[in-house]
Amino acid sequence: MRAFRVTIMLKPGVLDAPGQAVERGLDALGYRVEQVRVGKVVEMILPEGERAGVDEICARFLANPLIETWTIEEIPAGAAP
Amino acid sequence: MRAFRVTIMLKPGVLDAPGQAVERGLDALGYRVEQVRVGKVVEMILPEGERAGVDEICARFLANPLIETWTIEEIPAGAAP
Repeated sequence: MRAFRVTIMLKPGVLDAPGQAVERGLDALGYRVEQVRVGKVVEMILPEGERAGVDEICARFLANPLIETWTIEEIPAGAAP
Repeated sequence: MRAFRVTIMLKPGVLDAPGQAVERGLDALGYRVEQVRVGKVVEMILPEGERAGVDEICARFLANPLIETWTIEEIPAGAAP
């Protein structure tokens, strides 16, 4: 039983509308922030966990390989979720 | 100039409908996964970066402190976004 955290971000250069919205909103509120990018996190436990299995899940279902990249990290099983 | 990554997750016990959808979807596809939780990541650069400033932004605007928790990590400025 292994727990994994997948972080999915849009590739550099791909328009990140939510990120722009956050950036403009914070700027309007007086916070100086730059280059805001918004992504997704998916934490999951695999009973017979393999990192390769998680990568397959990401490539086929969780992310869009055309416009997104993802990183997989193993986390302590008690930490997630 | 410092770059930060904020990871926002629903608190334990708060219903995570997207997480359940992912879990059921993957299960239907034959992947055995458990306890899937979906969250958000926001990467940003603060020109005069302070971790306290990021925490304030999270508590006031990016997250809902009633139902969400967040972690802030500093990342290499070149890494994000």
